[in-house]
Order: sequence, then C-alpha cells, then structure tokens
Amino acid sequence: MKSHTHYLWFNTKRRQEIIDITDTVAEQVEQSGVQEGFVLVSAMHITASVFVNDHESGLWQDILKWLEETVAPWEPGRYKHNLTGEDNAAAHLRSLTVGHEAIVPITKGELDLGPWQRVFYGEWDGKRRRRVIVKVLGE
Amino acid sequence: MKSHTHYLWFNTKRRQEIIDITDTVAEQVEQSGVQEGFVLVSAMHITASVFVNDHESGLWQDILKWLEETVAPWEPGRYKHNLTGEDNAAAHLRSLTVGHEAIVPITKGELDLGPWQRVFYGEWDGKRRRRVIVKVLGE
Amino acid sequence: MKSHTHYLWFNTKRRQEIIDITDTVAEQVEQSGVQEGFVLVSAMHITASVFVNDHESGLWQDILKWLEETVAPWEPGRYKHNLTGEDNAAAHLRSLTVGHEAIVPITKGELDLGPWQRVFYGEWDGKRRRRVIVKVLGE
Repeated sequence: MKSHTHYLWFNTKRRQEIIDITDTVAEQVEQSGVQEGFVLVSAMHITASVFVNDHESGLWQDILKWLEETVAPWEPGRYKHNLTGEDNAAAHLRSLTVGHEAIVPITKGELDLGPWQRVFYGEWDGKRRRRVIVKVLGE
Repeated sequence: MKSHTHYLWFNTKRRQEIIDITDTVAEQVEQSGVQEGFVLVSAMHITASVFVNDHESGLWQDILKWLEETVAPWEPGRYKHNLTGEDNAAAHLRSLTVGHEAIVPITKGELDLGPWQRVFYGEWDGKRRRRVIVKVLGE
Repeated sequence: MKSHTHYLWFNTKRRQEIIDITDTVAEQVEQSGVQEGFVLVSAMHITASVFVNDHESGLWQDILKWLEETVAPWEPGRYKHNLTGEDNAAAHLRSLTVGHEAIVPITKGELDLGPWQRVFYGEWDGKRRRRVIVKVLGE
C-alpha cells in the first residue's frame, strides 16, 4: 500500500471565494504513484468546504448568493456563536451544508471524475492563511 | 491490497428520481473479494447525488418536495448559471446539499450498514445517460 | 494493509444532541496501529449525522436552531413519511443536509485535523440506543 500527503495553502483576497483545485490534486496523485485508490481532499478549517461541481463562473455566483440568502445569512446578531467575539457562525453552517471534504477515486493512475466534475475549495471566511490536506491511499 | 471498479448506468424516465442501489453495490463488494475495506459510491455528474437513508416511498416524496421548496426552487430565472442556456442550476445546489458520494464500510465481506440504511442514487436532472462509480478498496 | 473496526454506542437524554467524539476516534486510531491511512466515522442510523466542526457550545445551539428553523422544521404533519406512524421525517432531512459520515486522514499515527477541527456525533432523533462505526484503513 502506498500513501502520499500534501498540504495546499490559500490566502484569499475576498472573504468568500471558490477556487478550482483539480489540477493541483491531479498532480499530487501523479506524484504519489498510486494507480488504484482514493484521494481525500479535506479542508482543515471549520468555515470552509471542499466539493465537486462545475467550473462555471455564473454557478459560483449562484452558490455564494444561495449560501447567503437560503442556507445561512451572514447577519452576525442572529447567532450565539458570535457572542464569543466571532462574526462567522454563518460560515460554520455553510461548511456543514456543503461539506468539508471530498473523496475522489483514482483509476489507472488518474482522477476518475465525470466529464464536468471538478474539485473546488470553498472559502467561507478567508483573507487569512488556510490549508487543505490532499491524502492519497492505494497501490 | 485489492481494488475493484465498476460503473452503474442510469437513464431515468423522470427528471428527478430516487433509486435504491444497495443490492448492486453489495454485488460489487462480493465480486471484489474484499473482506475489510471501504466502498466509495460516487455520482459522476454535478446535478446528482449518492446518499444513505431510508427505503420508504413517502420519505422519497418528502425529499423531492423539500429540495424544491426549501433547498433550491427550480425556477430557472433565479440563477446566473442558466444564462449559459442551461435550466438546471437548482440541481447543482441540490447536489451540493445532499452530497454526491457516500463511503460504506465493508466488514467480513459485507456492507456494514445499520438496520435501516440503504444506498441511493438521487437524480436531480435526468432523462439522459448517467453514471455512478462503485470503487472498492481493502483486503 | 491494516484494518480496525469499532462501534460506539449512544443513548442521548434529549432527542437532539451534539456529542464530541474526537478523543474516542483518536483512541481507536491508536489501537489500530495505523500510521498512514483514513478513519471513517459513520452514523449507522438515518436520522443522525457525523460531522467535523467546532467545539463551541454557542455554535451547537446555533446548529440545532438552524436545523429547526431553516433546514427542516420538525412539524410532523408536514411530511408524508410520518403517515407511516413516525414523526421524524425532519430528522431524515437534517441527516441528508449535514451528512452521516466523515473521513479523517491519519498521518504519523494521529488524526490529521486542523487546529479547531473536532469530530461530532449529531443525534437528531435520540433517546434510544444508537451506533456509530469507526473503521480505520491504512498501514
């Protein structure tokens, strides 16, 4: 069995941002030498997400709007968590909804994704150093 | 370490549909010969889901209604993604909410599910050929 | 390849409750002897969740309120599933939203979590015996 671990770092300019990390994940899979296995891509923060969806900028805007209007409005006064001095409770709820990790299958040495599937880092409370783990397991 | 990869194909009659795929996943686990491991069941599309829940038709109706009324109304005019000519932005948001993959543990050669747990494919934009990967890893 | 399987049992006093299980998961990883791998932590019920987020009691209250007010109000009369005699359809929808499982990477024999990440069991319909599987795979 082989394993390979790599950490990606981000520091977004905007507080909410969606970043396509598919190529970086694919590079790590190549470096691992794993032909058949899984790669776990997981945000190491509790106000961020990793998800698989579409590389389409209109959709990214839809996602950010939906997180604000439907999933969890930012409004700091609405949440008890923010009594700790934070203002980011909404980002926690957004992370719970979209999820913080994805597992991508590796087949014949490559990410086994459907034609439109791409892997994204979703930053819900950025403008600071943030990390994602990419961990490959297989043979 | 053993691995085993299989693709399931779907072409639903309705645009939204929930399909129990537990038996097919269990068959693939049996074929793999894996006694201890994980099976990843993952939709290869960005407007579909794989999830674990209950085999109960009233609940399936509740899920479809909830996706429409609470999670993301279909209303094509509401979303920027649909300016590309698509009308399915809501299906993307539904996929993000419910998730597109599940990992089921394998113990003593069998799916290690709780008494009521079943694995489902959730089609949120069907009536066309669609695919789910079933990938077993273990020994 | 090594594997290790353990079942956690819960019987919450309240019907909805959030329980930090990080230390128990870490103990199982230690017992497994796995240095590099994944640990799957998965609820074996369809009205419960496992998720990774913050150990902060104000946030836990926010999550329970958000599940009731935004994600899926309990109101039994609202759901077809409850025609079966159940009253817990909302708990199924909450499980679908938050997810029922998490995969945590193991690096150098330890849970490879970010500084604030903790693993939780989310009980959405408790006051009865419930189970979570912790399954370690790696080497």
